Amino acid sequence: MSFLLKLESEIQNNNSLLCVGLDSDLDKLPEHLKTEADPLATFNKAIIDATHDLVSSYKFQIAYYSALGITGTEQLIQSIEYLREKYPEIPIILDAKRADIGNTSEQYAKEAFEIYKSDAVTVNPYLGHDGLEPFLRREDKGVIILARTSNPGAKDFQDLKIEGDTLYMKVAQKIVEWNKLYGNCLMVVGATYPEEMKVIRQIAPEMFFLVPGIGAQGGDLKQTMAMGLRKDGSGLLIHSARGIIYASSGKDFAEKAREEAQKLRDEINTYR
Amino acid sequence: MSFLLKLESEIQNNNSLLCVGLDSDLDKLPEHLKTEADPLATFNKAIIDATHDLVSSYKFQIAYYSALGITGTEQLIQSIEYLREKYPEIPIILDAKRADIGNTSEQYAKEAFEIYKSDAVTVNPYLGHDGLEPFLRREDKGVIILARTSNPGAKDFQDLKIEGDTLYMKVAQKIVEWNKLYGNCLMVVGATYPEEMKVIRQIAPEMFFLVPGIGAQGGDLKQTMAMGLRKDGSGLLIHSARGIIYASSGKDFAEKAREEAQKLRDEINTYR
Repeated sequence: MSFLLKLESEIQNNNSLLCVGLDSDLDKLPEHLKTEADPLATFNKAIIDATHDLVSSYKFQIAYYSALGITGTEQLIQSIEYLREKYPEIPIILDAKRADIGNTSEQYAKEAFEIYKSDAVTVNPYLGHDGLEPFLRREDKGVIILARTSNPGAKDFQDLKIEGDTLYMKVAQKIVEWNKLYGNCLMVVGATYPEEMKVIRQIAPEMFFLVPGIGAQGGDLKQTMAMGLRKDGSGLLIHSARGIIYASSGKDFAEKAREEAQKLRDEINTYR
Repeated sequence: MSFLLKLESEIQNNNSLLCVGLDSDLDKLPEHLKTEADPLATFNKAIIDATHDLVSSYKFQIAYYSALGITGTEQLIQSIEYLREKYPEIPIILDAKRADIGNTSEQYAKEAFEIYKSDAVTVNPYLGHDGLEPFLRREDKGVIILARTSNPGAKDFQDLKIEGDTLYMKVAQKIVEWNKLYGNCLMVVGATYPEEMKVIRQIAPEMFFLVPGIGAQGGDLKQTMAMGLRKDGSGLLIHSARGIIYASSGKDFAEKAREEAQKLRDEINTYR
């Protein structure tokens, strides 16, 4: 099944637009886990078991694992294997923001889809079409392209004015074109800039947006839903990591993560 | 010693602006190496031993190693350790084109500088300043930011017109600003678009450019040197991977790599 179908199906199964971010930082784990052999994998498995019926998808931020070298990479692979075996219906997003020239991007596509066995990967548009083509041609996989990011520096280039539009609008227009050709694109649109989200929804009325920035980064959920929701009440994957996975630093971390995930899933649904 | 000083020093020592790319692809290695336990590391060590006195720097394209999973990562670490121990004076560039929001980029900086122990890393400007700040504040390290890339898709966004400039010009102007603040920036400028290189040299008369695109991608060396050279006859790192490391697929691969590296180093010097 393609990523987008798998995603639509899980959104219905769990009545959820929530994407839980397993951006698991060794420094922030509960103390009692830090002495485990595989602390990140142990942590992730517990969070997954506690939240699997509340999510539309999980997103793994690869940087937190790569920063630990081989052991981090091993624990990322182990976490994804656990998820794929126990809950094969849940879509897995690798947040890697990769892109390079074509023959190098082919290697990155192998990394994302063969080594980590993810269903979708985030990519950076700066190198243009041939840098993304090795991802795009994997029609079974999702390609989630940065349009307007959630961070302050997004203003540096993404907001530059181009022929009455802005760079992020030009990027969003191109993503819509690519999606017509390949049928497997999504885009990243930060929750911290609701006006920009409104503009991008006009450009791409039918596409899925992965939306970071709710919670620690300060994005407002109600406004995000008002600006970004598709006409069918779907089309947004509301990402939350820190607010859920670090809800407690005690032995009840998984239980508290479930509470926060449920709260956010339900709050999202009140705005649909 | 900072990356830029180390680089200037090695350019003088070896009288070379050549950057050899260890973008080592398992499929393209000499047959007799493919059965080795660590074929990529064995290959890299032989190329390094054969070319170390001809280069200004080495660049490792991480994608080729990551595409092989744990064993690839191990061989990349092993190759870099070998280089650092045996030839500590040669600067090491990790070509990773990373960037994310600030706290995630901190993890990527750890990956590049702590795990792989590189002296410099390539990064993508799309997320703006705070996405690059964790790299930039490492004043001892080099931060090589994409300006105008060498691939056809570079036209999609980098060439968009903005207030009489183009996006790549705006990016180059910003890199110049950042370099004034941090003193450790370089930029990527492809050899396949000499007119664009000329424009960027005007924007950044004193900076170093990492220049891919000579050889397999079709960039012309003479024109690149004419357009891109700094007034002091330096300021360009001419990258070549495929033309050197795959010069022979037989047992003489290292010897042939040396011949090609010497030829290119010397040809570059005729245009300085």
